[in-house]
Amino acid sequence: MRAQLGNDIAMKAYREGKLPFPDGTIIAALHWNYVLSEENNKVLAGQFPGAQSFVVGSAVNVQFVVKDSIKYAATGGWGVAEFTDGKPGSEAPHKTCFACHQPAKDRDFVFAHYAPTP
Amino acid sequence: MRAQLGNDIAMKAYREGKLPFPDGTIIAALHWNYVLSEENNKVLAGQFPGAQSFVVGSAVNVQFVVKDSIKYAATGGWGVAEFTDGKPGSEAPHKTCFACHQPAKDRDFVFAHYAPTP
Repeated sequence: MRAQLGNDIAMKAYREGKLPFPDGTIIAALHWNYVLSEENNKVLAGQFPGAQSFVVGSAVNVQFVVKDSIKYAATGGWGVAEFTDGKPGSEAPHKTCFACHQPAKDRDFVFAHYAPTP
Repeated sequence: MRAQLGNDIAMKAYREGKLPFPDGTIIAALHWNYVLSEENNKVLAGQFPGAQSFVVGSAVNVQFVVKDSIKYAATGGWGVAEFTDGKPGSEAPHKTCFACHQPAKDRDFVFAHYAPTP
């Protein structure tokens, strides 16, 4: 289960469809494991076939990307930080982030789309 | 896809495990349809079998519950409001909410658990 949060600079750019994201953009990614909710599925039983409801289980980590087009020029302007249980992770995984984000190159390497307000 | 947001009173009660939720509690439920993300799955290909990544698609609605143990005594103290595209819905669906929430009676009729911070 994943949710992304943006600071004011990030949200303004998202809403305006502005690319690339300006320096100062911070996006946080919250990651959880998910579990089947038997309680929820009892409520939904008969409405849908099969197990339908998965909910947040245990926490995995939180990751931040920070845009600084000078400081992080080598990785598209994005610096990455990772925390697990509130403790900062090593630099090792950050070096592997950029390669996997190449498919989102035309969106400034950001996979997450802006979720329309319900 | 569903996410729940709570006001300060709701979040304080959640974090302290305090039940029932005090008067003034407001919980918002954001509902979206979900779609398969082919782009994300390309990144994940080889790491996991099958389609893995579903992302927020179009918005469905937003619902609010408001706790007022006097005003809404007949429905466990919870009043319900629903908005679609920013427009308030009719009162009809609100009358059917309470019945389905009975399985969560021991949690003051609230299904959503507090998500641990990653």
